[in-house]
Amino acid sequence: MSRVETALAEMGLALPPAKTPVANYLGTKQCGNMLFVSGRVSVVRGKVDTEVSAEDAKLAARDTMLDLLAIIKADIGNLDRITSILKLRGFVNSAESFKSQPQIIDGASELLIALYGEAGRHARTATGAAQLPYGASIQLDMVVEITS
Amino acid sequence: MSRVETALAEMGLALPPAKTPVANYLGTKQCGNMLFVSGRVSVVRGKVDTEVSAEDAKLAARDTMLDLLAIIKADIGNLDRITSILKLRGFVNSAESFKSQPQIIDGASELLIALYGEAGRHARTATGAAQLPYGASIQLDMVVEITS
Amino acid sequence: MSRVETALAEMGLALPPAKTPVANYLGTKQCGNMLFVSGRVSVVRGKVDTEVSAEDAKLAARDTMLDLLAIIKADIGNLDRITSILKLRGFVNSAESFKSQPQIIDGASELLIALYGEAGRHARTATGAAQLPYGASIQLDMVVEITS
Repeated sequence: MSRVETALAEMGLALPPAKTPVANYLGTKQCGNMLFVSGRVSVVRGKVDTEVSAEDAKLAARDTMLDLLAIIKADIGNLDRITSILKLRGFVNSAESFKSQPQIIDGASELLIALYGEAGRHARTATGAAQLPYGASIQLDMVVEITS
Repeated sequence: MSRVETALAEMGLALPPAKTPVANYLGTKQCGNMLFVSGRVSVVRGKVDTEVSAEDAKLAARDTMLDLLAIIKADIGNLDRITSILKLRGFVNSAESFKSQPQIIDGASELLIALYGEAGRHARTATGAAQLPYGASIQLDMVVEITS
Repeated sequence: MSRVETALAEMGLALPPAKTPVANYLGTKQCGNMLFVSGRVSVVRGKVDTEVSAEDAKLAARDTMLDLLAIIKADIGNLDRITSILKLRGFVNSAESFKSQPQIIDGASELLIALYGEAGRHARTATGAAQLPYGASIQLDMVVEITS
């Protein structure tokens, strides 16, 4: 088992099965030592603040990151090959009233830092969205550095 | 004629004239073998589901990709220089009711795969937007790998 | 003083203090000669067109770019190390009626071009958002090339 998956198990978490793309695209695409990871949406649905609580949305962000990691593992074989998390982009399906997108996306960022330490710290943008695929609450994509 | 433009012609399609940026930015910017392509919006206007059908929006996504390719050709001279499509980002101007953004952006992805085969397969994120420039239905930007 | 800060001073502008991230992420993350800069939102709040004028929003875009530059300087030491602005992404908190996002983000782009000349010209995407962190009017992130 990889170092990262051991750390996950110690947190009481595990990688879910890697989901396949919902349309005509790849889970990840590599260029040199950079890996572009496609957007995935959360299983949790609904607008944050009115239909989904901030607490549940933050957990959904963590779980969506687990999906991204499972997809990366399926594509590159071992999560220990990730040497740096470069950029995370998060969209939060936001009710008009909701203005705390960064605190929601922290659910994903904190998992990355717990698993990768300093290398897991990353640049990030958290934005509100009026509508996400399937009415999901969260959408995440990222760019990571891997050993070639 | 380039291999890619020959493939386009065989599909009954052709590159439109390369549009110039609507404001103070470039159509593309290069860094090493990576080319960042600016966002372009569709000529088709209106919210998908209430003002524009999903079918028309998917076609608009394909046509917007033709605009991106025309701009790339104007900047790098020959579309055969693209060696890999890395990341496509698509925004769909979505009515509250509309949750199938991935199927719309497939209009652009399928064109790239038809033209570039395996190299045309890419990482992607499809997101809903409440408002796009000029009220357009679709906005696309991407990162591609080119021969230097 | 760096060449870029001298140019800023000649424009009657100055770098603000570098703001720290509002949640668990970094201001910037480097990979080779590429620097990913996290999203920052404007101090100016409200939806453009109904709560904030286009003129004020364009100024807010310029001021948010000053924040990004201050954060980059804090991380890499000297703004003259930026050799090329690659990609700028801007979100405008838009009233339903507002469709001129590119003209707002020009406030940021024009500053970059004034400071860096040809190297400051960049690929860009300007998108509408239904909601941004803290109800801000503008959100900007970018990727720049730096000397290593």
